[in-house]
Amino acid sequence: MIRVNGQATDTLNARDRGLAYGDGVFRTLCTEAGQPVWWADHYAKLEADCSVLMLDCPDQNELRAEVCQVAEAGQGVVKIVLTRGMGARGYALPENPATTCVVLASALPQQVKPADGIHARWCKFKLARQPRLAGVKHLNRLENVLARAEWDDPEIFEGLLCDDLGVVISGVMSNVFWVKAGELYTPDLSQCGVAGVARMRLLRAAARRGMRAHIDRFLPAQLLAADEVMICNSLIGVRHVARLADTTWSSAGWTTLLNDALYENVD
Amino acid sequence: MIRVNGQATDTLNARDRGLAYGDGVFRTLCTEAGQPVWWADHYAKLEADCSVLMLDCPDQNELRAEVCQVAEAGQGVVKIVLTRGMGARGYALPENPATTCVVLASALPQQVKPADGIHARWCKFKLARQPRLAGVKHLNRLENVLARAEWDDPEIFEGLLCDDLGVVISGVMSNVFWVKAGELYTPDLSQCGVAGVARMRLLRAAARRGMRAHIDRFLPAQLLAADEVMICNSLIGVRHVARLADTTWSSAGWTTLLNDALYENVD
Repeated sequence: MIRVNGQATDTLNARDRGLAYGDGVFRTLCTEAGQPVWWADHYAKLEADCSVLMLDCPDQNELRAEVCQVAEAGQGVVKIVLTRGMGARGYALPENPATTCVVLASALPQQVKPADGIHARWCKFKLARQPRLAGVKHLNRLENVLARAEWDDPEIFEGLLCDDLGVVISGVMSNVFWVKAGELYTPDLSQCGVAGVARMRLLRAAARRGMRAHIDRFLPAQLLAADEVMICNSLIGVRHVARLADTTWSSAGWTTLLNDALYENVD
Repeated sequence: MIRVNGQATDTLNARDRGLAYGDGVFRTLCTEAGQPVWWADHYAKLEADCSVLMLDCPDQNELRAEVCQVAEAGQGVVKIVLTRGMGARGYALPENPATTCVVLASALPQQVKPADGIHARWCKFKLARQPRLAGVKHLNRLENVLARAEWDDPEIFEGLLCDDLGVVISGVMSNVFWVKAGELYTPDLSQCGVAGVARMRLLRAAARRGMRAHIDRFLPAQLLAADEVMICNSLIGVRHVARLADTTWSSAGWTTLLNDALYENVD
């Protein structure tokens, strides 16, 4: 089911700036029994991302009601897309912008929560550094599309990305973490990458447990020297990386511990 | 008037990857008496851009017929948007992709062909360097939106952009050229920027006249030392920059000469 600006419809205007320029932001979140999971965090991130793009964010309660309108009765996935709506031709911001709000429901992907670790690869594609857009989940995602197009082996669940300087940034659709000697490591995302809600929750969960977290610029060799490597996003939670190219890891228990912590309701 | 996949309609599917990821390319071109201007060049560029994104490009004659269907009877503008169509949720390329083709007509902007030179500014926004997407007119245009949002003074027609290393790249919606001692200069676009059809035609026109052209990495100071500075795109042709921040130039005649050359029919 899809709703656009509060109406049940499958379509949006072909002059929308979301199509013309990718001028907008999005969120993909789980729903349980027709309710959004981690809603406060998702809305806060949506608001923050809108602010970077100078985009009006819909009211929290109205948006939540829209999400509930499309959500499946059981478990499901809802994607929220906010764009700068329509405007005159050209890049200039519309004088009276009206945000377009699209909510789309889909089924939870089957591969979401297997017990085993996942297999990953390094992408050849290098992310560009654009600090003005770094961290934001905006609609300009051609880099992710080109990176994901590097493989079609269904055994490979995720590809890891570096920037043009060779610094580790993230997965194509996830954030990456690792543990070494009981401390947590994850890339700094001030130059590129998407700072997801699961990443933020994982960092908070680690802090609650008194686990030291390092957010910095790391090279692939530092990740490869980890005791345990994980990826996370809002749909899969935390997942253990069992294989990355030629390197294999057996789980040392950190993934289970941090995944449980991710779902703690501490609000 | 708008046509989507050969049908007269104002809307496209909300699950289109053009909206989700900016997964597509576009062209903006002039029409005269209902026919596209510089069609062979525009189609060749569209095909080349599609190839970079591994996107199927529609047949040339069918696409031209679509453009003619929407074009105004007199002068006008038609925008062509090609996207990777719909697919399952996620970045992976669809197994059986079907390109979405949108053609939209609009009126020729009023400011298109004034006799006087234009006023420009330097944008603070810096373009990221992404060689895999450089030169391509793709739908990921948030950088242009953010750069254009820096000013709302209607006297300023264009903003000039540098990359993160301070190298001159282009205007927000145009390519930039300058003449110094009778030779032509324009930025190399192998790292970022859009290599437009007007730019290519201008380079060919200069070559026909035996004018030496330098395509390289240049700093703002080199542009500022020019005898004459110009911007170009498919809608405005070649336009003389009369003022750039505190620097002013009177036309030395190159703009007129090169603009005339741009419209020569040499096919």
